[in-house]
Amino acid sequence: MNIDLDGILNSQRLAISRALSFVENSDVLDMVLTDALFQHLGQAYRIGVTGPPGAGKSSLVDRIIAFWRGQDKRVAVISVDPTSPFTGGAILGDRVRMGRHYSDRGVFIRSMATRGSHGGLALRTQDAADIFDAAGFDIIIYETVGVGQVELDVANAADTTLVVLVPESGDDIQAMKAGLMEIADLFVINKADRQGANQALAQIRSMLEMRETEADIWSPQVVKTSALQAEGIPELMELLLSHQDFLQQQGLMRQNFKDRILSKIKSHIEENVLQQFWTPEKQALLLQTLDSGDFNSWVPGEIVDNLLKT
Amino acid sequence: MNIDLDGILNSQRLAISRALSFVENSDVLDMVLTDALFQHLGQAYRIGVTGPPGAGKSSLVDRIIAFWRGQDKRVAVISVDPTSPFTGGAILGDRVRMGRHYSDRGVFIRSMATRGSHGGLALRTQDAADIFDAAGFDIIIYETVGVGQVELDVANAADTTLVVLVPESGDDIQAMKAGLMEIADLFVINKADRQGANQALAQIRSMLEMRETEADIWSPQVVKTSALQAEGIPELMELLLSHQDFLQQQGLMRQNFKDRILSKIKSHIEENVLQQFWTPEKQALLLQTLDSGDFNSWVPGEIVDNLLKT
Repeated sequence: MNIDLDGILNSQRLAISRALSFVENSDVLDMVLTDALFQHLGQAYRIGVTGPPGAGKSSLVDRIIAFWRGQDKRVAVISVDPTSPFTGGAILGDRVRMGRHYSDRGVFIRSMATRGSHGGLALRTQDAADIFDAAGFDIIIYETVGVGQVELDVANAADTTLVVLVPESGDDIQAMKAGLMEIADLFVINKADRQGANQALAQIRSMLEMRETEADIWSPQVVKTSALQAEGIPELMELLLSHQDFLQQQGLMRQNFKDRILSKIKSHIEENVLQQFWTPEKQALLLQTLDSGDFNSWVPGEIVDNLLKT
Repeated sequence: MNIDLDGILNSQRLAISRALSFVENSDVLDMVLTDALFQHLGQAYRIGVTGPPGAGKSSLVDRIIAFWRGQDKRVAVISVDPTSPFTGGAILGDRVRMGRHYSDRGVFIRSMATRGSHGGLALRTQDAADIFDAAGFDIIIYETVGVGQVELDVANAADTTLVVLVPESGDDIQAMKAGLMEIADLFVINKADRQGANQALAQIRSMLEMRETEADIWSPQVVKTSALQAEGIPELMELLLSHQDFLQQQGLMRQNFKDRILSKIKSHIEENVLQQFWTPEKQALLLQTLDSGDFNSWVPGEIVDNLLKT
């Protein structure tokens, strides 16, 4: 396919949409898009928003969009749908919840359906973000549903990672604290009008206090919000901006950018290596081996060795 | 390491523990364990339990354990911790919630800390399950936290997959229905004493009714429970047993077993291929390329091509 680079750089919605569809649907493992966009990247601030289903992430993202729009910043949202590898479906609910921004030309909301491998999901999300970056969007928000490994990978590729929880997440905070600590720059306790919000806040604070603080390392922060009632949003935005300042002062925006491209290069290499390995002959050989003979006489390790030797 | 096969086959806890630690910690990509156990597998019934954090999965698993123990079946639980790739930590909360079974010799509960790749997580969980299978456990339960891709993979490798939701999951049911439909054999609405349980039940029922029913395809079922109050458990177990019957009648237990070993063979091959590819020379070359010259002059696609050609 032809990538309409000029169209993307001029932020034409049709050119952007087409490039996004290319990313979503392509099985082609080349770097055409990356190479075309590479010299035009690095301006956008990338925010990852993750957390369990039902935490109110979409409503929160809606508030974050509204804040940046108030500052005349252009915002792109990539909604990553973990169920889509099975179905190609998109999360329609988000369209409803973020509906008021759909007619705003300064906002571009896209649900990513991902048909590829796991690695493919993080990779394609990045490619999509690069399109928005090159198109001059100031803010790119990745929203992922779930707290699984892939979702963490996606969120982790952002400059700032928000982990959204609800008051009921208490047990899980306890259970997952080590893992969450590693990825969260900001914790948001949303739906804070519900019972247990202060307790959840205290739980996270006490776990954050156990960390040693160092001047050149960001200390994760926690904030209570009620996205539906528009409460706590100024406090959240203040923390978000202070993390952005911190990143810029420490040169970390540039470092994140370098890390992302390195990880993209590695992933592309690995997907290519595997594609080269699985020739039609090797695939046929594997299936033949499995069909032949008595299942109970298999020695799985020998099957592996034979295919590696072929 | 030496695998104490006799010890495992005789269900000695020390031999099992050591084999589990081997699976957890080993970077060795060989099939020694699989080959040793292969002829002793296929007896256990494997149940995957997945769902968002806070859905009460551990309490539910506790009830399921108690049911099988009442029938004198031996039960193993593998708790897969999605946060552990970052920290190696285990979910301590589960130990508390399933605590009453810890002193029961007919029960073996293990939290899997996974340090490997994504593929590694599903792979290692399977290896752990194989150990329990060979050791003669009747029931193996994989419990995963989260509804991300990797968790779905893990749950999907089971014979029966339970998706646990709470009444508040309404929006998410709507959003994720296509994906959940693909993997769930049984939906459990836990914490059903909370408001909205009947509504969630109706939502799932109406989405299940849209499916065409065919005699040789399982129609997913839905049940309300309150694990803490021990309500709905007999109904849940009845559905679970009827799915097990269905699998046996259709020859699907055997098919699942074959599918699992095929996928294990493929994963081992792919991990080996990548390990062979990333020679120290290639790793050094990549880092050299990235360190040399001006970052802005990079052409990522050329870096990929050069490494593939080396």
